[in-house]
This record gives sequence, C-alpha cells and structure tokens, in this order.
Amino acid sequence: DFLQALDEIKPAFGIDNTNLSNSLRGGFYQYGERFDELYKTGINFINEIRNSKNTPLLSVLLEGKNGSGKTALAAKFALESRFPFVKLISPENFVGYSEQGKISAIVKIFDDAYKSPLSLIVLDDIERLIEFIHIGPRFSNAILQTLLVLIKKKPNNADRKLMIIGTTSMRSILQEMEVVDCFNVCLNVPSIRSKSEMASVLSNFKASSQEVNKITKELFELEDIVASGGIPIKNMVLSIELALQNSSSGQIEHQAFMESLKAVHHY
Amino acid sequence: DFLQALDEIKPAFGIDNTNLSNSLRGGFYQYGERFDELYKTGINFINEIRNSKNTPLLSVLLEGKNGSGKTALAAKFALESRFPFVKLISPENFVGYSEQGKISAIVKIFDDAYKSPLSLIVLDDIERLIEFIHIGPRFSNAILQTLLVLIKKKPNNADRKLMIIGTTSMRSILQEMEVVDCFNVCLNVPSIRSKSEMASVLSNFKASSQEVNKITKELFELEDIVASGGIPIKNMVLSIELALQNSSSGQIEHQAFMESLKAVHHY
Amino acid sequence: DFLQALDEIKPAFGIDNTNLSNSLRGGFYQYGERFDELYKTGINFINEIRNSKNTPLLSVLLEGKNGSGKTALAAKFALESRFPFVKLISPENFVGYSEQGKISAIVKIFDDAYKSPLSLIVLDDIERLIEFIHIGPRFSNAILQTLLVLIKKKPNNADRKLMIIGTTSMRSILQEMEVVDCFNVCLNVPSIRSKSEMASVLSNFKASSQEVNKITKELFELEDIVASGGIPIKNMVLSIELALQNSSSGQIEHQAFMESLKAVHHY
Amino acid sequence: DFLQALDEIKPAFGIDNTNLSNSLRGGFYQYGERFDELYKTGINFINEIRNSKNTPLLSVLLEGKNGSGKTALAAKFALESRFPFVKLISPENFVGYSEQGKISAIVKIFDDAYKSPLSLIVLDDIERLIEFIHIGPRFSNAILQTLLVLIKKKPNNADRKLMIIGTTSMRSILQEMEVVDCFNVCLNVPSIRSKSEMASVLSNFKASSQEVNKITKELFELEDIVASGGIPIKNMVLSIELALQNSSSGQIEHQAFMESLKAVHHY
Amino acid sequence: DFLQALDEIKPAFGIDNTNLSNSLRGGFYQYGERFDELYKTGINFINEIRNSKNTPLLSVLLEGKNGSGKTALAAKFALESRFPFVKLISPENFVGYSEQGKISAIVKIFDDAYKSPLSLIVLDDIERLIEFIHIGPRFSNAILQTLLVLIKKKPNNADRKLMIIGTTSMRSILQEMEVVDCFNVCLNVPSIRSKSEMASVLSNFKASSQEVNKITKELFELEDIVASGGIPIKNMVLSIELALQNSSSGQIEHQAFMESLKAVHHY
Amino acid sequence: DFLQALDEIKPAFGIDNTNLSNSLRGGFYQYGERFDELYKTGINFINEIRNSKNTPLLSVLLEGKNGSGKTALAAKFALESRFPFVKLISPENFVGYSEQGKISAIVKIFDDAYKSPLSLIVLDDIERLIEFIHIGPRFSNAILQTLLVLIKKKPNNADRKLMIIGTTSMRSILQEMEVVDCFNVCLNVPSIRSKSEMASVLSNFKASSQEVNKITKELFELEDIVASGGIPIKNMVLSIELALQNSSSGQIEHQAFMESLKAVHHY
Ligand SMILES: Nc1ncnc2c1ncn2[C@@H]1O[C@H](COP(=O)(O)OP(=O)(O)OP(=O)(O)O)[C@@H](O)[C@H]1O
Ligand SMILES: Nc1ncnc2c1ncn2[C@@H]1O[C@H](COP(=O)(O)OP(=O)(O)OP(=O)(O)O)[C@@H](O)[C@H]1O
Ligand SMILES: Nc1ncnc2c1ncn2[C@@H]1O[C@H](COP(=O)(O)OP(=O)(O)OP(=O)(O)O)[C@@H](O)[C@H]1O
Ligand SMILES: Nc1ncnc2c1ncn2[C@@H]1O[C@H](COP(=O)(O)OP(=O)(O)OP(=O)(O)O)[C@@H](O)[C@H]1O
Ligand SMILES: Nc1ncnc2c1ncn2[C@@H]1O[C@H](COP(=O)(O)OP(=O)(O)OP(=O)(O)O)[C@@H](O)[C@H]1O
Ligand SMILES: Nc1ncnc2c1ncn2[C@@H]1O[C@H](COP(=O)(O)OP(=O)(O)OP(=O)(O)O)[C@@H](O)[C@H]1O
Ligand SMILES: [Mg+2]
Ligand SMILES: [Mg+2]
Ligand SMILES: [Mg+2]
Ligand SMILES: [Mg+2]
Ligand SMILES: [Mg+2]
Ligand SMILES: [Mg+2]
Repeated sequence: DFLQALDEIKPAFGIDNTNLSNSLRGGFYQYGERFDELYKTGINFINEIRNSKNTPLLSVLLEGKNGSGKTALAAKFALESRFPFVKLISPENFVGYSEQGKISAIVKIFDDAYKSPLSLIVLDDIERLIEFIHIGPRFSNAILQTLLVLIKKKPNNADRKLMIIGTTSMRSILQEMEVVDCFNVCLNVPSIRSKSEMASVLSNFKASSQEVNKITKELFELEDIVASGGIPIKNMVLSIELALQNSSSGQIEHQAFMESLKAVHHY
Repeated sequence: DFLQALDEIKPAFGIDNTNLSNSLRGGFYQYGERFDELYKTGINFINEIRNSKNTPLLSVLLEGKNGSGKTALAAKFALESRFPFVKLISPENFVGYSEQGKISAIVKIFDDAYKSPLSLIVLDDIERLIEFIHIGPRFSNAILQTLLVLIKKKPNNADRKLMIIGTTSMRSILQEMEVVDCFNVCLNVPSIRSKSEMASVLSNFKASSQEVNKITKELFELEDIVASGGIPIKNMVLSIELALQNSSSGQIEHQAFMESLKAVHHY
Repeated sequence: DFLQALDEIKPAFGIDNTNLSNSLRGGFYQYGERFDELYKTGINFINEIRNSKNTPLLSVLLEGKNGSGKTALAAKFALESRFPFVKLISPENFVGYSEQGKISAIVKIFDDAYKSPLSLIVLDDIERLIEFIHIGPRFSNAILQTLLVLIKKKPNNADRKLMIIGTTSMRSILQEMEVVDCFNVCLNVPSIRSKSEMASVLSNFKASSQEVNKITKELFELEDIVASGGIPIKNMVLSIELALQNSSSGQIEHQAFMESLKAVHHY
Repeated sequence: DFLQALDEIKPAFGIDNTNLSNSLRGGFYQYGERFDELYKTGINFINEIRNSKNTPLLSVLLEGKNGSGKTALAAKFALESRFPFVKLISPENFVGYSEQGKISAIVKIFDDAYKSPLSLIVLDDIERLIEFIHIGPRFSNAILQTLLVLIKKKPNNADRKLMIIGTTSMRSILQEMEVVDCFNVCLNVPSIRSKSEMASVLSNFKASSQEVNKITKELFELEDIVASGGIPIKNMVLSIELALQNSSSGQIEHQAFMESLKAVHHY
Repeated sequence: DFLQALDEIKPAFGIDNTNLSNSLRGGFYQYGERFDELYKTGINFINEIRNSKNTPLLSVLLEGKNGSGKTALAAKFALESRFPFVKLISPENFVGYSEQGKISAIVKIFDDAYKSPLSLIVLDDIERLIEFIHIGPRFSNAILQTLLVLIKKKPNNADRKLMIIGTTSMRSILQEMEVVDCFNVCLNVPSIRSKSEMASVLSNFKASSQEVNKITKELFELEDIVASGGIPIKNMVLSIELALQNSSSGQIEHQAFMESLKAVHHY
Repeated sequence: DFLQALDEIKPAFGIDNTNLSNSLRGGFYQYGERFDELYKTGINFINEIRNSKNTPLLSVLLEGKNGSGKTALAAKFALESRFPFVKLISPENFVGYSEQGKISAIVKIFDDAYKSPLSLIVLDDIERLIEFIHIGPRFSNAILQTLLVLIKKKPNNADRKLMIIGTTSMRSILQEMEVVDCFNVCLNVPSIRSKSEMASVLSNFKASSQEVNKITKELFELEDIVASGGIPIKNMVLSIELALQNSSSGQIEHQAFMESLKAVHHY
C-alpha cells in the first residue's frame, strides 16, 4: 500500500555515532608504517565505492589477533567515510537477544542501508555474532546463513551502493565457514611488533626516553612475544595505564610496565 | 469448492523480471568457444521441452566455482526462454525466513508453475537454500527433502511442462546428498582460463592492446590460477573495475589490475 | 458415539486412479523374460492374498536402482489388483507437510484400509517418506517407527486383508533400519541389461533396425553400463525422447541417442 | 478430593481380550520338548506370584529372534493366568502417538494395575515401544526411563501384586540399556531347529508324510538355517500357507514350500 | 509481601513415612561385621550434623551394585534420624513427569527443607533421577546441573542444617559428572560375600542347617559370584522366596534355591 | 518515554550483603605468605579501577581447585571494595531457572551495574553458570555467549566503571571456551600446601601444639596430597570440624582429624 511504498522510498540516513565513538575511547595511535599502509588501503576502498558506478557492493574483512584493534579501526573507517548511512552491528547490542531476534535486527539494518544511496555497515566480531565456540563446535547456523547471503547481496536499486566492513579474530574458522570467501577482500590487522612501533605507542604517554628504551629492549627479548607476532595494541595500552596507576612519579616506569604486561598477557 | 477449483484452473503467468535482470547487472560477455558451446546446450534443452510432447519435466544443474557466472547464466536462460511462467528462487529472497517459511514459499512457486502450460524455475545456490555448512555438516533436511521431491515431481496435468535450472558451487556435496542424481542433466560452468578468453573479457573495457598483452601474460604465469582452473568471471570483472577506478588515464593499467586481482582473489 | 461407530463400520472403498495412472505416463514396456518373471511373481502374491483365508497381511518390497521402474511397477500391480481399496502413499503428496502431518496422513490411509475387506497400499520411495539422507545420517525416526509398526500390523478384524507394496532405491539402508525384515518378501527390479532387452525397449519407438543394432552394440561396449548393472528404464526412455527431439528424420538416430544418454546418465 | 479418593480405591478389573486373542490368530502349536519346558517355566512364575505373600512384583523378559513367537507366547501366558487385570502394551496401539502421549498411556495402565490385587502387564516389543533404531542409535530416552522405573516399581499397597512380561528381539541392546537387568528373570524363546520340531509343526497341516520327510531333510541341509539357530515359527507358518495356496492338491508340496520359505526368509 | 514472608518463616515439618517404609518391605537383616561398620558410620554422620554448630550441610553418597540395599539403607538412616523434616526423592515418584516438572518438584523439597532447623533428604538412584543411559550417553543436563548446585548449597539461614544422602549404582559415571565430588563423603554398600554373611541372611528364614551349609558351600564355589564381589542382598532374598514357594516342606531346599538364584542372577 | 529515561539515569546502588556474607560463613583465615600476596594483588586491582580515569573495565579471574576458597575470596574482595554497587551472580540463585531466565537475570544485573559510577560483579562458578558437564561435553552456549560479550563490554557512559571478578575450578575448559582470554587478568587460588600453612589454619581452632605437629607431619607424608598440590581450605576446615565433633576433649585429636580428612578427601 501507499505507506509501505513511501517507506521503501524514504532514505534512511543516520550515523551510529555513540557506538562508533565508544569503540575509539582507548585512543587511536598511528604507530608506524605498517599501520599507515593498512589505513590507506582501507580509505582507498571507501573512495572507490563512493566514486564507482559499476560496483554496487564492496566488502572488506579485517582479521587479526584479539585486541589488535580491529573494532577500533573499523569504527575509524566508518566515521571517516562520512557516508550518509553508517551502522555498527556488534554482539554487544544483542546481549540477551534470541537467535531470531538477532536475525531480525541484522536484516532490518541491511534493509535500511539499501534505502540510502551510499551506506557502510560494520559487522563486528563475526564469530561472536554467530555465537561460535570451538567446543562442539557450536554456532548459530541461522545467523551464519543470514550473513553468508547478506554479505554477497547487492542493493536491488541500481543507484544504491553498500560497503561492508567485517571483523574477526578467527580467520581460519570463518574460512572453513565460507565467510571469508564471501568478502571481496581480506586485510590483516597486525600487532605491535618492532621496537619503533612500541616506542611510537609509548610516545603518547608520559615516559622518559630511558624507560622507553628499557621497555622496548626487554619486550624484544621476550621470545614469546616475537614468536606470537607481537603485542596487541589493546594489551599494550592497558598495561601502560595499569603501570601509570602504580607509578608514584606519574610516568611509566619500566618495571611496573613489564609486570602489568605479564598479568594482562596471561603469562 | 468452486473458488478453489477456479484457483486450480487459473494459469499463473508471470515473469520474475526484476530479480532476473538484477543478476545480470554485471554484464554478460561471450568470452569464447567454451562459453558458446555451454550456452548452445542450454538453449537446446529449453527448446526440447518447449517442443516435446512426452517430456513433462526437464531439469538441468549448472555447477561451477564461486563467481563463475552460474546465477547470471541461469538468469540469461530464464529470460531467453520467454516461457509464460519464469521464477527465480534465490536465498536472497528468503533472508530472515524461518525454515517452514522458506518451504512454503518454494512449494507455492512450484504449485504456481504447475498451473502454467510451460514454466521455468531457477533454483539458485542450492547449498545456500538448504543452509548447508561444512562444519558439522549442518543443513536444513526439511528444505533438502522438499527439493529432492520437487526436482523429480512431474506436473500432474498432462498438458503442463516444467523446466528446472539449478545452480551450485558444491557439486560433490550435492552429489552426496543425492541432489545431483535428481537432475536429468548436469553442466559445468567454467572459469576464464585461456589467454584468448582473458583478452576477450578485457576487450569489453577501455584498455590498450599492450596492457592487455601484459595482463594475459602475467596471469598465465601465476601457477595458482592455472592450477585452480582459471579466474571466475566475477572476480575478473571486479578487478577490472577496481583497476579502472585507480587509473588516472581512464584505461586499465596492467599493474593496477594485478594488484586488484590479488586482493580480490584472497592471495 | 453413534457416528464414530458408523464411521468404523463404513467400508472405505476407493481407488487412487489419478496418482497411479500418473506414475505410468512414461509407458510400460514388457522388455523381456526377466521382466515377465518379476511381473508374474507380483501378480501371484496378489492372488494369494485375495484367495487365502489365513493370511490377513502380505507385504512385498520392490528394490532397485533409481529409475529402474519401481514406482511404475507398483502402480501397475495396484491397478491390476482391482482390490476395492487401493492407495498410493508417495512423498510427492506430502511436500511441505510437517513430520506429524505426514504421520497422520499415513495412519489415516492405513485406518481406512483396515475397513475394506481387501486393500492394497503402495508405500513409494520409503527412504524419501522417512526423509533419509546419507549425511548424518538423518531421517525422521518418528515416521520410520510408524512404518516399522504399520508394515507388520494385521487388520484387527478377522475378515479384512491387506497387501502392502513398498519401493526403495536404498535396500541396504532399509536393511540396517530393519525395514526390509518387516516385509514378508523382497523383490529386485532390474535395469535394462542385455542387447535383446535394449532392442525390445527401442522397438516401441520409430527407429530403423540398423540404428537399433548400432545402439545396442555401442551400449554394450560401454563397460560402465555393464558393470553398473545396466541402464534404468527411465533413463533409457528419456534418452530416446531427447534423441527423437533432435532428430530431423523423426526417427531415433544412433549418435543423437548416445549423446543424450551420456548427458542423462551423468558421465 | 472425594472422587479422586474413590478413584484410587476402585479396583480396575479388566482383561484385554481382543488384542491378546489377535496375537494368537496364527495358531499355537506345541512343537516339542523345548517348547514344553519354556511353557512350564512361565506358568510356574505365574503361580508363584499368585501364591506368594512376600513377592509383590515379578518380571520376566522373553527374548528371541523376529517371529520366534514371543508376542504369541506372552499373550498365551496372559490369557492363561486368569488374573483379574491383564493388559497388552503394544506399539501397535500407539501408532501416531506423540512421545508424551505414549508415556501417559503406559503410566495409566500401570496405575490401573496397581489398583487390582493381582495384575499382569505384557510390555510387547520393547525396542519398538522406545522407538529404537540402530542408526544413530536413536530411541526415546523419556519412554525408556519410564520403563526402567516402572519395571522395578512395586505396587505401593501391601496387598497388591504385579507380574510383568516383556518381549524383545534385541536382547543385547536392551542389556546395554539396563533394561534386561531390571527384569528379575530372562527367558529365551527358541526357533524351530530339529527335524522333529519341524515335523511337529507340519503335522498341523495337510501333508503326506513323504513330503514332510523331504521338507525336513532339505531344511536340515540348508546350512544357513542351522547356523542361524533355526526357522522362526512365524516364517514357518507363513511359508506353509503360501505353499498351500499354490498347491493344486490342497496339500503341502515340498517344492512349493521350499520356494515360499526362500522368499519369506529373504534369501 | 507479608504472606510470602510468613511462608518463608513457617517451618515445613514432615516425614515421608509411607515411601520410606515401602523401601524396607523386603526386611532389614544385620548380616555381619561389614554391615555393622557401615551402619555405624552412617549413624555417626547423622549425629554429627545434629550436634554441630559450624556444619550447616553434610552430604553422604551410598554407592554399590544393583540390589545391594542402598535404597533400603538410606531409608533406614532417614527413619532412624528422627529429624523433623525427612523426604525421599525417588524416580518412582516422578514417572511421567516432564524434565521441568521434575526440577520444580526437587527444588520445592529442598526449599521446604531449608525452612526446618534439621532436615534430611534422600536423593535415591541419582542416575535415574537424571535419566542417564550409557548409549549416547544421554541424560538430563538440566536435572544434573540442578543437583550439582543443590548438593553443595548451604541453607541461607544460619540456624538451619541439612543432611543429604544420595544413592547410586553408577559410581564411575557420577564421578565423571562431578557428582561424587559434590558429596562430602562417599560410602560403599557391599554385597553378601562371605559364608558367614550368607548364613546370616539365610538364618532369617526356615532352613535346616544342613541345607544352609550346602548352599553356602555351593555359592562359594561359583567363581562368578566371588569374582563379581558377591550376591546383592535383594537377589538373595528374592531367590530365597522363590525357593520357599517351590518347596513342599515349607523350608528352603538347597537345589531349589540354587535354581532360583541362577534365574534371578541372569546366568 | 520519560519514565524509561528516568530509569536509565537512576543509579542502581546496592550491595548484595546477605549472599556475600553467607559465602564467608566458614571463616577467613590468613594462612601465610602466598595468601597475603594473592590478597594484596586483588586489592591493588580494586584500587586501580577506583582511581583510574582511562580504564572503564577491569576483569579478574580467580581459578583454583574445588574448595580452594575462590568464592570466599571473591566475596571478601567484593565486600572490601565498598563500591556503591556490588553483586554476586551465583548458580545457587538460579536453581530451577530456564536458560532464558538465567540470561535475563544476568543481563539485568549488568545493566544495573552500568548505571552506577563504580560497580563490582562477582561471576561465581562460571562452569556451573554455563551448565557445563564433561560428558558430551554439554553446556549452555547461549549463556556462555552472553558471558563472553558481557565480560568484555565497557559501560557506555564515559563516567561509569565496572570491575568483574570471575571464579572457576576448570581453568583449562574455560580457556578452550575463550572465557579466560576475555578476562584482563587470571589469578591462581592455591591449596594449603606447606607445613606452616597447615599449622596456621589449625591455629584458629583448639588444638595442642603436639597434635598440630603430628598432623602436619603426617599430612606431609601423604604423597597424594603433596602431588595433587595440597589440601583445599574447605576440606581442611570441614575435617577439623568433624574431628572436633568426635573429640571428647573438645580439642582436635590427631587420629580423628586424619580419619575425617580421608573420608572428606574421597580416598
Ligand atoms: N591504531 C590503532 N588501531 C586500533 N586500535 C587502537 C589504535 N590505537 C589505539 N587503539 C586502541 O586500542 C584498542 C583496540 O581494541 P579493539 O577492541 O579495537 O581491538 P579488537 O581487535 O577489536 O579486539 P577484540 O579481538 O577483542 O574484538 C582500543 O581501545 C583502541 O582505542
Ligand atoms: N558470460 C558470462 N557468464 C556469466 N556471468 C557473466 C558473464 N559475463 C559477465 N558476467 C558477470 O559476471 C558475474 C558473475 O557472477 P554470478 O553471481 O552470476 O556468479 P555465480 O557463479 O553465481 O557466483 P556464486 O558462486 O557466488 O553464486 C555477474 O555479475 C555477471 O553479470
Ligand atoms: N516395464 C516397465 N517397468 C517400469 N517402468 C517402465 C516400464 N516401461 C516403461 N516404464 C517407464 O519408465 C519409467 C520408470 O520410472 P519410475 O519413476 O517408475 O522409476 P523408479 O524406479 O520409481 O525411479 P526412482 O528411483 O526415481 O523412484 C516410468 O516413466 C515408466 O512409465
Ligand atoms: N508355539 C508357538 N509359540 C508362538 N507362536 C506360535 C506358536 N505356534 C504358532 N505360533 C504362531 O506363530 C506366530 C508367531 O508370531 P509372533 O508375532 O508371536 O512372533 P514374535 O516373536 O512376537 O515376532 P516379532 O519379533 O516380529 O515381534 C503367531 O502367528 C502365532 O500364532
Ligand atoms: N541389611 C540390609 N540392607 C539393605 N537391604 C536389605 C537389608 N536386609 C534386607 N534388605 C532388603 O534387600 C532389598 C534391597 O533392595 P534395595 O532396593 O534397597 O537395593 P538397591 O541397592 O537400592 O537396589 P537398586 O540398585 O535396584 O536401586 C530390600 O528389599 C531390603 O528390604
Ligand atoms: N583464606 C581463605 N580463603 C578462602 N576461604 C577461606 C579462607 N579461610 C577460610 N575459608 C573458608 O573456606 C571455605 C572455602 O570454600 P569456598 O566455597 O569459598 O571454596 P571454592 O573454591 O569456591 O569451592 P568450589 O570450587 O566448590 O566453588 C569457605 O567456607 C571459607 O569461609
Ligand atoms: Mg573487536
Ligand atoms: Mg550465484
Ligand atoms: Mg519411484
Ligand atoms: Mg512380537
Ligand atoms: Mg535403589
Ligand atoms: Mg565456589
């Protein structure tokens, strides 16, 4: 009927500011080259869909270790895009929802997106959205199937475009589940690995260069960290803050930092 | 009663134009001999059921890699058939449906088809229709069983004929599930493999013959691509478009194309 | 109450003509000795239960490859029996039914049968009735258990007799499921195997004897077909029809037939 | 309240004549010593519970091959007991019931039994009552647990006694499921094995002693039959009847019998 | 509100006499030293919780073979305790209950117990309460989890004390399920093993000492019985009663006893 | 609407005194250095979140053997924090709840916590909250997923802070389930291991130093105890109390203690 027709025409502008900003409360540090390159690639894709005529759909998956900054990065991209419709689909918004409730909520957001000329949806923590757990393994096949279709579905209307940014800490699982193949592109979000990256992050906090040197040196000697591909930025920032809290000087002290890091890194 | 009787007699003409055309938005390129042969075979089957008196049911399964063009090809056949009843059954139309809801919708379309003298139904992405996932494996047995019966069920009425075109990227799974055997015929949809096929696709876009030569040469040197049976046409077209977007000259540049391809092909 | 009592007494005569005839739309060819013997055995059992006083229940299972003609043969027996109550229980009639819906429909038909002095029920495609699939394996245990009991249950009333004809393409599965043992007798429905059988089938269509000779000779050279026990009659007939359609002469041509057969036989 | 109190006091006399007699429609032949001994043992237990003061509950499991006559024997014992309350709990009475429906019906019968001073309940085909199937395996744990408790539960009232006779063709499964251990006693129902037993059964039908001799001799030469422990009496009787039907002389003819037996025995 | 407050204060006195006495209808024989020691230990724990100030909860698990007398012993302890609140939670009271129905009933009894200053609850046949079966294995996790919490939960109110006595024939299963560890203490209920124990049990019935001698001697020679840890008292008592029933002299006769024992013991 | 808005603003102060104190009814003994260090670490984290500006969420997991004192310690921390909002989420409060009921109750408590400037939630016995059992294994994935999200979810409002203390006896299981990684920090709660620790605990009860010596010496000789990492404090305290109950002198006697310990420790 008429109202429904109206509803379908009405563009659903709207940006999910509160949730997106909340994901960035821990700050956003440009810690070196590897970061810059990743950031540029993402911005590139955003521009491509904005300008392209023949690409109604572009989907990018950000994958990396727990705490490597995937959610913050996706939120950053979403805010920077300045697309008229931007939404974060996060498991945190679905706590206590039934399976069907989650599906309806997700479908609703995509349907809204199809009404805007240019939309961006963040699918955060896909393994958690589908309620995956290794033991079993168990997961919601209904949510998974919904995502498998939505990630590949072009807006029906010829003048609508949609960008999807997914995040996951379980690349290999999503690969097995054919989710990775549904995305056009897959990018790795790295951990803090080199001395210069570590120093770069520390430079955002009060610390004497001497202490910074000691820290980067010691970190680098921890085989565990090098072997496992580095320290996720989230762990790094929390350790700094715990160290600052324990510090009498108000500056990061090398020993306090190392202790915090060990507790936070579950040694 | 009378109304129901009427309902059963009333032919249900109708063609699913919007959905079918949407599947062809990425264009439809005749990229060489292998394509021509496949296309001719399909058109042949369409003519056979149109003209035959003793074949009330003919079913063809199109199988091939992700993005090889199965959906577009099935849509093409459906539109070309000009049968009075043509429908696309696609998982994209069932997002958020319950299992029972999907089954009812599918059964409804087949029931409508049985009322038309000549009908064509596309069962797109059968593994997704049955919500299949390798892990487990899990799938909707209820939907699968419905399809297993519908694919083999002849119209009751002696003067009604039905053609079914299925598509799948998981031939071996559907084989195990006895779906392949339900189809009368199974055809492979190939990827772009030879240099001439690649050049043929590229010829639809702005590109100097020099760049085209470089591209086909380099592509051919990628062992991965040859070994895996070629590049699906969907990936090829998206890579071209991303490359064009990044190009200052407005023409495909060889390096930009190779980079886009690598991102899109998940290297 | 009174009405129910009436209902229980009232004989439920009725023959399922439409469905049974539909199963025979592809014709019924007497292709040789092996066919004749099988046919006679079936007719014998029908006569035995018709005439016997002490056998209230007789059940026969027809098993054979896909398309070997089990459904058509069962329908033929049912129509030939001329019993006052004859019903076909086929998965095609239960598309979209719930598990409980199927069970009720099946039970209802048996209850009706028990009210007729002489009844015949065809349980067609038992693996499909119980929604069996190898992967898992999965099936409806509720429907299976219902069948396991119904196949062995004698009519309560001393002057009622029931014949059950089952069909299946999965003998070994039904054996594991104890269904085969529930039947009193199990008969194999063969495929077309010898040259004379092939020629006999072809003789029902327009074809020069020369072409027939070429076909039977070539067929016999296909190791695959001999090894796999022959060509199911359904595949044979469809191949003939496709070949006729492609023929300019209006007669079966040897090459066209072989090509159709290969497509239909999933080589 | 008062009515309920009344209900609990009111003895529930009643004998399940129709169902029990129906189980014996195939006759009841005393085919030799092994039969006599088994029969005497059963009658003994019936007398023991009838006369004993300290045994409020006695349970006996009859186990043997398909068709060995367990149901008929249990029905015979039940009818011979002449206890005031005698009921047959058979899967045939629960066709189409839900799991909960079956449980309620079973519990109701036991509750009625506890109201009679002397009761006998036949639990026929326990594997079918619990909807057991090897594949999986699957079964109704709710029904199984109900039986596990009911088989061991003494009537609350000191002057009530209950005998339970179970039957099964799957002794080892019921053993694994702890059902066998719930019964106080477990008895094997044998198949027809020796020449004299075979002759004894045949003597109930019209047959020349010459033909009987031929039959017993040939049967005995079938290694299969000896190895598998003999012919179940049900198969033997059906084969005789089919043979009589095919006989022109009105007598069992040796060849006709052997053919029937082969069909019935699934060779 | 006020009524609820009242409800929470109101002590729920009550002893489950009927059910407990019923468990002892087979008598209670003090068959020797091992019995005496076990009995004393149990009585000790009862006294400890009665007198202690700092132990609000004490839980004891009785484990032993089928028929070893666990239920009778638990009932004996419960009756002897003379605690103001004594309840038997037995699967026999939950026949036909739904899972949720059982849980509610169990929770209700514990809630009542928390209102009495001194309570004793028997959790009889825990494997049956949780509907455990080896095949699968299957069990009600919801009931199990309820028990795992209730067995460790202290009464909230500082002046309430609760003793829990559990019984099981499946110690190792309950161990795997962490039930055994929830109990403070675990005691083994033995079978009748030595000659003197056997003689002691027999002495409660009419039997000449000569026959008693013969029996104990023969029993002791049955390797099976010694190896398996003895004869459960329930089997012993039933065998005696069957033997008495078959005896003309009104005394236990050695041969009759051995035969009954063999039948009852499933040889 | 307005009321809901109010509801969201209204701080939900409240401390769960009854439940927390109840967890400490068995006393709280400072038994040595290892205890002191663990205690200090916990208090430190509490102070850090109280004082920090940039850490809106801090989560600590206490893991250790059954009875090692995790619940008591968590309760102690909660009471000592003197945060305006303190809640204990314990399986004991959810007995008889449905899965959805538990989830709602848990979500409600977290939602309340987000309204207070400074909150502390104890997630006690996480394996029991998620209804985990090794056999299967089985657990409530819905509850688990709820916890996996809630443990990492920061309060939305910039001026709210939340501390979460979890407890578990199954560290390795929670690790596999990714629960451990959700916590910022994981601390081990040890058992009583050294002689001085044992003596320290005993010193809280009436016991001659001679008896104490004998006990610590004997305990230390039990290889089992040393090998298994010591005696959980809960077992130690219960054994002492049982020993005191059995003691005539009103003092702990060495033999009585050792016997109680053996019973309580399931030797
Ligand atoms: N360059 C950066 N990129 C990403 N995050 C950053 C950066 N600099 C600082 N941060 C901070 O680091 C934290 C990264 O945590 P975030 O939750 O985004 O990681 P995640 O990879 O999504 O973790 P999880 O696997 O748990 O979902 C955030 O608090 C963010 O504000
Ligand atoms: N000759 C062609 N055949 C098929 N598709 C073509 C052809 N030429 C161009 N295309 C374009 O290539 C794309 C093929 O994508 P399509 O979705 O049909 O592939 P698919 O095999 O169905 O993929 P999927 O496995 O993901 O379902 C479409 O955009 C289509 O317009
Ligand atoms: N002698 C014959 N026996 C059986 N079918 C025949 C015979 N002659 C011709 N036909 C035709 O062959 C076809 C056999 O197909 P039918 O569906 O009965 O096979 P089926 O074994 O039941 O196959 P499915 O395994 O798929 O159920 C029918 O169209 C039938 O009309
Ligand atoms: N002595 C006998 N004992 C048992 N049955 C006999 C005897 N003599 C004749 N019969 C007949 O043999 C048949 C035995 O079949 P019955 O259904 O009782 O076997 P069953 O062991 O219960 O089979 P199933 O395993 O299929 O339940 C009945 O028809 C019965 O009338
Ligand atoms: N000293 C005894 N201890 C226990 N039971 C005894 C004793 N003396 C006689 N009995 C009798 O022995 C029987 C023991 O059976 P009971 O049902 O208690 O065993 P159970 O171990 O609980 O068996 P199940 O494993 O089947 O639950 C009862 O009838 C009881 O009256
Ligand atoms: N220093 C201590 N730390 C912890 N508990 C103590 C201490 N001193 C005494 N206790 C007492 O020891 C008991 C510890 O039991 P608690 O239930 O806390 O252990 P738990 O590790 O949570 O056990 P479970 O694994 O069964 O949950 C309590 O009764 C507590 O009062
Ligand atoms: Mg994240
Ligand atoms: Mg497709
Ligand atoms: Mg068929
Ligand atoms: Mg039977
Ligand atoms: Mg018991
Ligand atoms: Mg605890």
